[in-house]
Amino acid sequence: MSPVVVGPARRTDTRRMPAPSPSLPVPTAAARPSTQHRTLANGLTVLVEPMKRVQSAAFSLMVPAGSSLDPPGKNACAALLCDLLTRGSGDLDNRGFTHALDDLGVNRGESVGASHLSVSAATVAENLPKALRIYRDLFRDPHLPEEEFAPAADGLRQSLRAIEDEPAQRVMLELRRRTYPAPWGLPTDGTLSGLDALTYADVVHLHRTAVRPNHAVLAVAGHVDPEAWFDLAAECFEDWEEKPDPPIEPGPRGPARDHLHHDGAQTHIALALPAAAYGEPGYYEAWAAAAILGGGMSSRLFTEVREKRGLCYSVSASLSGLKAGPGPDAAQEGRLFCYAGTTAERAQQTLDVLLEELTRLRDGVTKDELTRCVARAKSGLVMSQESTTARANGLARDWRHLGRVQPLSETLDAVNALTAENVSEYLATRPPAPPTALTLGPAALDWPD
Amino acid sequence: MSPVVVGPARRTDTRRMPAPSPSLPVPTAAARPSTQHRTLANGLTVLVEPMKRVQSAAFSLMVPAGSSLDPPGKNACAALLCDLLTRGSGDLDNRGFTHALDDLGVNRGESVGASHLSVSAATVAENLPKALRIYRDLFRDPHLPEEEFAPAADGLRQSLRAIEDEPAQRVMLELRRRTYPAPWGLPTDGTLSGLDALTYADVVHLHRTAVRPNHAVLAVAGHVDPEAWFDLAAECFEDWEEKPDPPIEPGPRGPARDHLHHDGAQTHIALALPAAAYGEPGYYEAWAAAAILGGGMSSRLFTEVREKRGLCYSVSASLSGLKAGPGPDAAQEGRLFCYAGTTAERAQQTLDVLLEELTRLRDGVTKDELTRCVARAKSGLVMSQESTTARANGLARDWRHLGRVQPLSETLDAVNALTAENVSEYLATRPPAPPTALTLGPAALDWPD
Repeated sequence: MSPVVVGPARRTDTRRMPAPSPSLPVPTAAARPSTQHRTLANGLTVLVEPMKRVQSAAFSLMVPAGSSLDPPGKNACAALLCDLLTRGSGDLDNRGFTHALDDLGVNRGESVGASHLSVSAATVAENLPKALRIYRDLFRDPHLPEEEFAPAADGLRQSLRAIEDEPAQRVMLELRRRTYPAPWGLPTDGTLSGLDALTYADVVHLHRTAVRPNHAVLAVAGHVDPEAWFDLAAECFEDWEEKPDPPIEPGPRGPARDHLHHDGAQTHIALALPAAAYGEPGYYEAWAAAAILGGGMSSRLFTEVREKRGLCYSVSASLSGLKAGPGPDAAQEGRLFCYAGTTAERAQQTLDVLLEELTRLRDGVTKDELTRCVARAKSGLVMSQESTTARANGLARDWRHLGRVQPLSETLDAVNALTAENVSEYLATRPPAPPTALTLGPAALDWPD
Repeated sequence: MSPVVVGPARRTDTRRMPAPSPSLPVPTAAARPSTQHRTLANGLTVLVEPMKRVQSAAFSLMVPAGSSLDPPGKNACAALLCDLLTRGSGDLDNRGFTHALDDLGVNRGESVGASHLSVSAATVAENLPKALRIYRDLFRDPHLPEEEFAPAADGLRQSLRAIEDEPAQRVMLELRRRTYPAPWGLPTDGTLSGLDALTYADVVHLHRTAVRPNHAVLAVAGHVDPEAWFDLAAECFEDWEEKPDPPIEPGPRGPARDHLHHDGAQTHIALALPAAAYGEPGYYEAWAAAAILGGGMSSRLFTEVREKRGLCYSVSASLSGLKAGPGPDAAQEGRLFCYAGTTAERAQQTLDVLLEELTRLRDGVTKDELTRCVARAKSGLVMSQESTTARANGLARDWRHLGRVQPLSETLDAVNALTAENVSEYLATRPPAPPTALTLGPAALDWPD
């Protein structure tokens, strides 16, 4: 295929490759230059990491107005707010907002998580301050035009309906809501029934009560001067008033074992098991175990399920976690997620091998397996230091999960300290727990007792 | 959603964002340091670009054994060869190959294009030479174990069947085979019927006749010394014997307008129109037109189809092209591809608006529209200079399409020279041609006469 441009016309078939190894949190470069941080009086944290060898710069700005604050029965509120925020703010109307960021050459994105709305922007360093001012207005002075509510809802409805045609994505979304308690496990982009119940007033109310500086994080990396960015952040956000944290009533989790009917040639299998979360003791051992189980083409799942038996076209494992609250002190739940996509007639055998490998993992890992995943982690750490966007996201993530930024040296020390023995011990001493399990396809599968 | 790791458990919903702007070819950094090149006597070209400010390095190695050389009726041969090559070569067996690259921390990929098999590798710079030696053996001394043919074919069959469940991907693959003549337009990863007809002997024959140094390209970028890499490339490839180019018999294109039935909630619409190809006069004008039509959230399609009317969840346009042969002098066909995914009941209106916008594009573009897409292109060029993998791919792409590496200054000059007038003139003077058009969904749509 011709390599001229990346676009929908040359979507590559990523299913032939396994998922990348579960990535380690991206750490900070060595002490010189280091990350600097300030927390404004209203609770907004600013993290800046100068990278002198680049011309670009990137920021990630997270405010604690995620989908966990969707009103009960109206799961879609944060997603619709996220869309409506981009339809005019400050001096800019709907089109003006997009045009202004395009004129600055900004590569941008807005997304909804369970706890935060996040925006990210990357461009040549001299244009980034203007982009921050635009996003300041987006959060603090949005127009929230009522006449745009219907088109925004139409667009979101289309997105949600499209997931019905994408079973690999749907099975992971549905597994997530069965794994974590509501509202944390609900789809961050909402549900069709939630959207149908939603009103414009709900969206305005969410903005008024939840979009706030406390628990917000601005992380900046690239060709930037920390003092200048602290000044800019103060100018943009210092006079933003704190608001009380909206209460959240935790609800139930979904069923621990479930099947969703879907007509099609494929069956999609998704599992989640408890694991150490980022910042918890055992996290690096859990990370290594996930990588050895299902990260990349050396992994056990790829070897046993895909390569030796040709059972499926995609199989992987990764480590993820839920932070049930906007601050670093919120409770965490770590999970090892596994996914396999296969033809319906091979689904049972795929599931059986998957469960066998999960059982076998409790017997421990070998030194060779650990050496390989550590080597990949280290080169990944080096390469992640060379991207301003990856760094900005890494800073924000560290702050969210640890309440501090972890230097590269500390991550390397933790990775170098891993031994096959301590990974095996971690695995042997985890209390055995049945996985949360979901299949999606033409027929349910048999589960062992 | 918790931001700990990227993995299948937190696939983000990319459909809410339009496709990125069609990317410009990634150019070379300014003259100092510049790209150096050598072509070995057997025709293998080596391109090296030192990037002194990084610790990592990456290469892209392309050999002219792509899917256009699949035997007639056996479309899947190159895809299966690509898989089998990774199952043992030189001193390494199947597992040994994967383990050796993992031990070096290599982030790797192998893929099949119409004209070339490509491998790419990125890791810390000091480990990259060893990775090249491993890939040397992969191409020159593979075991091609016959007992691995069946599992490799099973895996490929699974991948191909999975596409049946992914209509957005399937519609673009099927549009491609209707747009370009066979064998160039055939799916590079093969077809189920092609795979059923394929034998182990076909795969061995393809390796023996097509995997060769003439028209091969090795492109290296990062923390590297050009002389050392020229020596290494000579050591690995100098004694590799040229082979004659296998003949290719061009076949027909598919039908220019077609519908594929697919049960589901969505209809997928895909169009392709002739456009200037990379290296041809008018390429930058064509690129700007594609970006203005359907690149990003400022684009006309996003505004008219997605935002104002809420007609669909995904709409985009991009520029791509086919190079009908392995060398830089091969004939090219450029295309503007458009895609829209929508619910079945809104599909007709989506198609109508899409066609209206294509007609309106012939009336020209405005200065504001051009300014925005140029600003985005420039910041994208800066950021692409900061990734070793992007640079290595860019070097190889330039060589394939231009027979030389285009310096950044030249690309910037071309972008800066764009005016709304010359983009409009390009659009007005293209001979009008009906698009190649394909829909996939529960019902066919009405087309204007």
